[in-house]
Amino acid sequence: MSLKPISKENLPGHHVELGIAQPLRLDSGENFGPFNISYQTYGKLNEGKTNSILVCHALTGDQFPAEKHPITQKNGWWELMIGPGKVLDTDRYFIICSNVLGGCMGTTGPSSLNPKTKKPFGLEFPVITIGDMVRAQKLLIDHLGIEKLFSVIGGSMGAMQVLEWASKYGDRLHTAVPIAGAPRHSAQNIAFHEVGRQAIMADPEWCQGDYINENKRPRRGLAVARMEAHITYLSEPALHRKFGRRLQERDQISYGFDADFEVESYLRHQGSSFVERFDANSYLYITRAMDYFDLAAEHEGVLANAFRNTKVRYFIVSFSSDWLYPTIESRAVVHALNAVAANVSFLEVQTDKGHDAFLLDEPVLHETLSGFLEGAIRHSGLGL
Amino acid sequence: MSLKPISKENLPGHHVELGIAQPLRLDSGENFGPFNISYQTYGKLNEGKTNSILVCHALTGDQFPAEKHPITQKNGWWELMIGPGKVLDTDRYFIICSNVLGGCMGTTGPSSLNPKTKKPFGLEFPVITIGDMVRAQKLLIDHLGIEKLFSVIGGSMGAMQVLEWASKYGDRLHTAVPIAGAPRHSAQNIAFHEVGRQAIMADPEWCQGDYINENKRPRRGLAVARMEAHITYLSEPALHRKFGRRLQERDQISYGFDADFEVESYLRHQGSSFVERFDANSYLYITRAMDYFDLAAEHEGVLANAFRNTKVRYFIVSFSSDWLYPTIESRAVVHALNAVAANVSFLEVQTDKGHDAFLLDEPVLHETLSGFLEGAIRHSGLGL
Repeated sequence: MSLKPISKENLPGHHVELGIAQPLRLDSGENFGPFNISYQTYGKLNEGKTNSILVCHALTGDQFPAEKHPITQKNGWWELMIGPGKVLDTDRYFIICSNVLGGCMGTTGPSSLNPKTKKPFGLEFPVITIGDMVRAQKLLIDHLGIEKLFSVIGGSMGAMQVLEWASKYGDRLHTAVPIAGAPRHSAQNIAFHEVGRQAIMADPEWCQGDYINENKRPRRGLAVARMEAHITYLSEPALHRKFGRRLQERDQISYGFDADFEVESYLRHQGSSFVERFDANSYLYITRAMDYFDLAAEHEGVLANAFRNTKVRYFIVSFSSDWLYPTIESRAVVHALNAVAANVSFLEVQTDKGHDAFLLDEPVLHETLSGFLEGAIRHSGLGL
Repeated sequence: MSLKPISKENLPGHHVELGIAQPLRLDSGENFGPFNISYQTYGKLNEGKTNSILVCHALTGDQFPAEKHPITQKNGWWELMIGPGKVLDTDRYFIICSNVLGGCMGTTGPSSLNPKTKKPFGLEFPVITIGDMVRAQKLLIDHLGIEKLFSVIGGSMGAMQVLEWASKYGDRLHTAVPIAGAPRHSAQNIAFHEVGRQAIMADPEWCQGDYINENKRPRRGLAVARMEAHITYLSEPALHRKFGRRLQERDQISYGFDADFEVESYLRHQGSSFVERFDANSYLYITRAMDYFDLAAEHEGVLANAFRNTKVRYFIVSFSSDWLYPTIESRAVVHALNAVAANVSFLEVQTDKGHDAFLLDEPVLHETLSGFLEGAIRHSGLGL
């Protein structure tokens, strides 16, 4: 299987071209557009258009949270959460999930054709921010004619988008659920991302970002970046429980550089399978957007000011063993919301699964999120 | 500056050829030799040969802990600890530090000439273990005519060597001081090392390990490996304190892939300066030796059995913010030593500096180690 530049023609679901009449003003100052947004929906939009939930995906996620992935044929990344009778009940809610700007699953990104040159953008693609991703999502929500979302929900980078939505477009959503997120990227977060980017750019097949034109792919560099990142998604106890020092299909160490240990074999597989579905330049651009995220910085360093006069109801979730976006980051959001007298609930899930817990079967998360949404429905009088 | 294969001719200090009459039996079963050990000494060996301390270096350390590095011209990595009047007082002790087997600073390693082929070993070099490193060191101590070391001391991989010394050759040392170490490499430790190795091997200039013959160097891969590892040597609070989200010589973000943040610039510098002094294949071999380290595994999974009947006095040190070799690993050693009624003291230094604290100015470490050594001298009756 080899990664082809993905166009809206060869992906299932919905596509819309946005920013045609008026290009999108990016945080960098550049005017960008027109561009495509690819998205999926699950369930039915009710007559009053009041039952929609926007689900925001993480760094390497996409718009297929609740169905087979069109490339890998694996289950959607949030099938545990979205579906009939599930927490995000598709018999009740209209779920929208769009590929982020800069992505590689149909929404315009660095692997898309630049209409001006008829060649893939590569590094001609503008450097974007979480704010730009959300600005593009908002155009989609406008396009769908939805005045107010019932909820915006997401984990990891998805949580950053949720916070951005609540901060910038608070009148467009009833509830916000940032899970395993942070109001800004820490020095350690930036450092890990920088290593990943350097691994990609060190690969000669990256070709200064022009690999599609050169008919090459920086597969090994991207795989190294993914392997490194994957370690940060798991806790040490989870790695110990899953793999420990168990050997991979052998009785004793080989005294060599093969994958002697299961954990090595697992990581190599994570790396090599990732490159089949993800674009290296998208990885550069999206990690950069995350690094740049700093909600307080836009408000004179006072995070609370990002939420002044907010009417949104918040449910903030962290995981006790998440060391990538630790609880202290979620608490900073809670404190900021308390300072502006917002309606906020906070849950720290006790688990050893690390950052990836937001994707996994965590009954406490599912039950409490369900309860939070019920309460918000009662409060809103929407009668969903 | 470019890295040349280092030979004993162009390094200061002492060199000895060992394993001549009888090759060294490696843990892999291979017989290896003859080979060189390069080492430095500080202070004077007393008449009774009772005042020697063997200092064991970490993964990227070398035999120059207490003098200018012959390549980088930087201060020795443990100058804070070793010198006249310092904790490891060279007016009192005879300090020995040797480059480990597999290293690249004069002791035989993969960049050394294979006497059989007259070419650098490359991947022909045998895969070695911490046990093999210590076995080679013991030949050096034999060669120096030292029957019993006053102490064996080391941090990180140095601590693993200390534990190996105490376990295998307990009658050859009075005291053992493993600092910021572990009795085995965890799944997370192995995972981080594997990413580093993959980064090196992904570099086409690695040439399947034969880069010296091909007159190339996998500089970018090795730099990525170093950058990744360096993150694990620091704590998140230390990174936050040192860099936070401060920008590198600019007022605002550049919307590009330059090193906008100080932490990125710092890491890039760590990577690019490392490749000037270290050999990529040595990095592969030494990380592999660390991954293989598992002292309990050699004793039916019971760590205490590694120390049965030990007469050595132990001082175990960990750092509260070290997440690479966290306190729980040192505690496992303490518990094992308690189980065999060994004489053991344990110190967890409260610091936010992370794993690298063992190299830094930590007064509590220096004071307590000094006290421990004084006590051991009194107890031993050596009258140093």
